[in-house]
Amino acid sequence: MVAHPGQGAALAATLLRVADGLRAAPGCEMYVINASADEPDTVWVTEVWADAEASDRALSADLGEVGIGEVLELLAGPPELVDLTPLGGPGLR
Amino acid sequence: MVAHPGQGAALAATLLRVADGLRAAPGCEMYVINASADEPDTVWVTEVWADAEASDRALSADLGEVGIGEVLELLAGPPELVDLTPLGGPGLR
Repeated sequence: MVAHPGQGAALAATLLRVADGLRAAPGCEMYVINASADEPDTVWVTEVWADAEASDRALSADLGEVGIGEVLELLAGPPELVDLTPLGGPGLR
Repeated sequence: MVAHPGQGAALAATLLRVADGLRAAPGCEMYVINASADEPDTVWVTEVWADAEASDRALSADLGEVGIGEVLELLAGPPELVDLTPLGGPGLR
């Protein structure tokens, strides 16, 4: 996700609050917020969900302290999504 | 990473053998091989390392059954790297 210029840290902070709201979400195996090493307004979220339904359910629900709307306001454009199927390797639960 | 046309599954299989060779590597917290949902020749590796030195050391070493050279032969071009700093969230050790 790319924030409006200068808003990368605010975007990361908001996403960290979203992540906190997902700690108990069923089917949420990972939701890690990452800062880009060379693009200060870019934030990557690496998510692992048990299935698409778990993701849809959790992210459309009230996320507690912060909602997705608060994230969308900070974005310079629509988020880029990379849809992956994990195959294996160390660190995968 | 993008494989030569039709070689996506071979690339994933080779990377899974690299991943197996990294299970005991010091500082390797994650090395997960992922298939792209919509690009059959594209494979993403999501890696988490304790520090850059741990990554350099492990990936330049003999990886056991398979080496990085075997991976490079399957690639259609240089791998795209996204360098990130994880900030927090569920699923991060």
